This record gives sequence, structure tokens and C-alpha cells, in this order.
Amino acid sequence: MQIEIWSDVVCPWCYIGKRRLESALAGFAHADEVEVVWRSFQLDPTAPSEATESIAAHLGSKYGGGAEAGQEMIDRVSEVAAGEGLAFDYHEAQRASTVDAHRLLHLAHAEGGPRLQGELKERLLASYFTAARNPADHAVLTDAAVGAGLSGERVAAVLGSEEFADDVAADAAQATAYGATGVPFFVVDRTYGVSGAQPSDVLAELLERAWTESQPLVQVVGENGEACGPDGCPI
Amino acid sequence: MQIEIWSDVVCPWCYIGKRRLESALAGFAHADEVEVVWRSFQLDPTAPSEATESIAAHLGSKYGGGAEAGQEMIDRVSEVAAGEGLAFDYHEAQRASTVDAHRLLHLAHAEGGPRLQGELKERLLASYFTAARNPADHAVLTDAAVGAGLSGERVAAVLGSEEFADDVAADAAQATAYGATGVPFFVVDRTYGVSGAQPSDVLAELLERAWTESQPLVQVVGENGEACGPDGCPI
Repeated sequence: MQIEIWSDVVCPWCYIGKRRLESALAGFAHADEVEVVWRSFQLDPTAPSEATESIAAHLGSKYGGGAEAGQEMIDRVSEVAAGEGLAFDYHEAQRASTVDAHRLLHLAHAEGGPRLQGELKERLLASYFTAARNPADHAVLTDAAVGAGLSGERVAAVLGSEEFADDVAADAAQATAYGATGVPFFVVDRTYGVSGAQPSDVLAELLERAWTESQPLVQVVGENGEACGPDGCPI
Repeated sequence: MQIEIWSDVVCPWCYIGKRRLESALAGFAHADEVEVVWRSFQLDPTAPSEATESIAAHLGSKYGGGAEAGQEMIDRVSEVAAGEGLAFDYHEAQRASTVDAHRLLHLAHAEGGPRLQGELKERLLASYFTAARNPADHAVLTDAAVGAGLSGERVAAVLGSEEFADDVAADAAQATAYGATGVPFFVVDRTYGVSGAQPSDVLAELLERAWTESQPLVQVVGENGEACGPDGCPI
């Protein structure tokens, strides 16, 4: 069973949703047969590659109330995060583009599959939300990527090029095709989707339902009909 | 929506099932969005490439009662077929391998997709069941294939080689993986299967159900959860 999650590394509900999914998976009997793939979604595609303002100031100027209002928004989401065991501390975080982070997530998937990508996703989220590190800074990204297990050389080559930019764009297009307007957006086996950081029991229900339907063919309607087999064509 | 049908060209229930599916599709609102693909299944993989006995004699010696009993089996299935508008007349049909017919069905799919393959499938079934023609005879096969619209040159090249034999074997392996013990075996979107020549209203129900589930993502569980979107991360 495959769970694809459209998500951004600077999206607080995405980190909270990740923990909720992890809780749901912890209680799911077939968790070892579940593959999680992180898909790219840029919440703020116009964010600059060089940080120029704090995220608090940006929120405050976008929604009104100035940096102080921005800090209060961060306070409120940090409280919810604390309830999931996450020590958010990103009052000092800078607004910056996440495209390079997403390109590295694609690199990680290409080089080491879901395990390596999952490790990098966790490190990128932690870097921003618990250490307020700049999500566009190549040194920060390299730290996370090499820490996750990627080769420094490959990371440098990707960061120095446009490699995987197409994949980031393709993920965004797919999210649009699915009607996703926000993230996290969970899709199971390209069949069922749920939007937002649902409570873990709702995610657990999704896992159970999708599991049942992902099982080898079910004869859903009627008895066996007349058929020919190795023993002939009974009538 | 895709319907794959494991089937043999010498399987009477497969031809009857084909008509029943066509009836179901005739009443299905989204029939123009349904693609039918014929998968290979050899009912009698040990049948010789040169015909040596009539199918009636073979049935009679396999199930007892001699050729006469075999003819009676053919009579009974022909009566059912008549109820579907099929004029079966295969009392004189020979037992012979269908592997070459299946290889041509793969050729047809490769060259002209489901439309051309469907045309050839119909001709091969009609050739055996309504004209008792030898299903292994290259002249008979060429007739059907060229009549369906394939190039005589490609047909000759395939019949003179082992081309598509791997595809025939792969189809059989897939049927086994699905637990199919007889044909026809219908699979919709690799999700739902039904075994046997089900009545057309049962097939119609399968189409409706599969259609509903094949539609773009449905949010099956819960309300939207907390999410970050273009308008921020409400809390």
C-alpha cells in the first residue's frame, strides 16, 4: 500500500500531520507493507531564494497585525505541535523558497527510496520548525541531506543545477489535478485522499479502509458464473 | 476504466460472457470511457498444434461417454449461446492449441489497441464456434487477423516466430496470481474481479460500482483537517 503525502517543509500542519500519521501507523497491523512517499508542494512559491524577512514579519504583513501578530500565530500552532510531542521553536525562522529542499527530497527518493526520503523529510522539517534554520540555505540543506545519508557530492551537484525541478513541478501539477488546495494532502493508492492534518484515528480509519480494498481481487458481485476451466465447461 | 478479460478463443462461456458484457455496456452511461483488453488464457495448454481429434471426441474421452456425450455437451452449451443470439455450430471443431491465436491477439493490441484487438477476438471466437474452423491453423488465423485489419506481412512474421509468446505466458501467470481457476475472468481497474459468464445485470452492477470508485479522489473520511494553503495556516 502506498501513501503519498503532498507537503511542504515549512508547513506546520504538515509536520503535525506527519506525527499523526506515524501514530496511526504505529497501531496499524500492516504498517510494514505501507510505503510513504513525500510529494512536493510549495506553499509560497514566490518566496525568494535569499531570505529577506522573518516568517513572523511576513505573516504579520500578509494577515495584518505586524510581526507581533505573526509571532502569536506561531505560538498557537506551536501549542498544537507540543500536543504531538513536537518542540516547535521557529519564531526566528526566515521566509525563503523551499524548491531546493524539494529537489533534494526527490534526489533522496531516487537514491534510497522511501526510507532515505523519509529520513530527509524529517530532518528538513526539524531543521525549520525546531531550529529555525533557513530552508533555502545550501549549507543547511546539505547538512540535512548528508545527515540523512546522501552523498555530499550528489547533493552539491543537485544544488548546483536544476536537477529534479521538473519532478517538483510535476508533483504540484498532480496536487492541482487532485483538487488539493492545501497541505498536508494524503493519498492512498491513488484512490482515497484526505486533506489536512486529520486526527490520527481518522488516518487510522483511512489505512484500514484502504488496506481492505488493496487486497488481492475480491469477487464483489454474485456467485461464480459459468466458466470453463481445467475440468471443462460445466453446464 | 479498463476491463481486462482473461479468456480463450475455444471457451464457449467466454463467447457467451462477451455477449453478456456487451449487453451490460450497451446500457452503461460511460461505455465510451471503458477500454476492454483481452488477456490470454489457454484452457487446454497441452492441446497439439496439429489437430488430431474432434473436440467432441476429446470431451467424450475426458469425461466419459465417448464422442456422443461430447456432442451432447456441445448441444447444451449451444442452447445457452442461442439465448445470447450466438449461432454456435462447432460439433465438427478440432482440438488444437490456441497459443498462436493468443499471440496474434497481442499483436493486434500492440498495433491497433483495444479496438483492433476486440475485432480480432470476435473473429477468432466466431471462426471456432460458428464455423468450426481449426484454431491452430495458420491459414484460418491469418484470415481472421487480416479480416480484422492487421497487415498480412506482420501476421506471417508473428506466426513464423515466437513473438508475443512471453506475453501469453505473462497473462497466464497474472491469472494464476489473481486466483482465477477458469475463464472468462473479468477484472476492472485491477481492483474488482468476477469469475465466469455472469448474467449481464451482474456485469452491469460491476460496471456501476467500479465506475463510482474510479472517479477522481473522494474524501472518504472526515471533514477537511487543519491545513496550510495559499491563505496561510489557520488555527
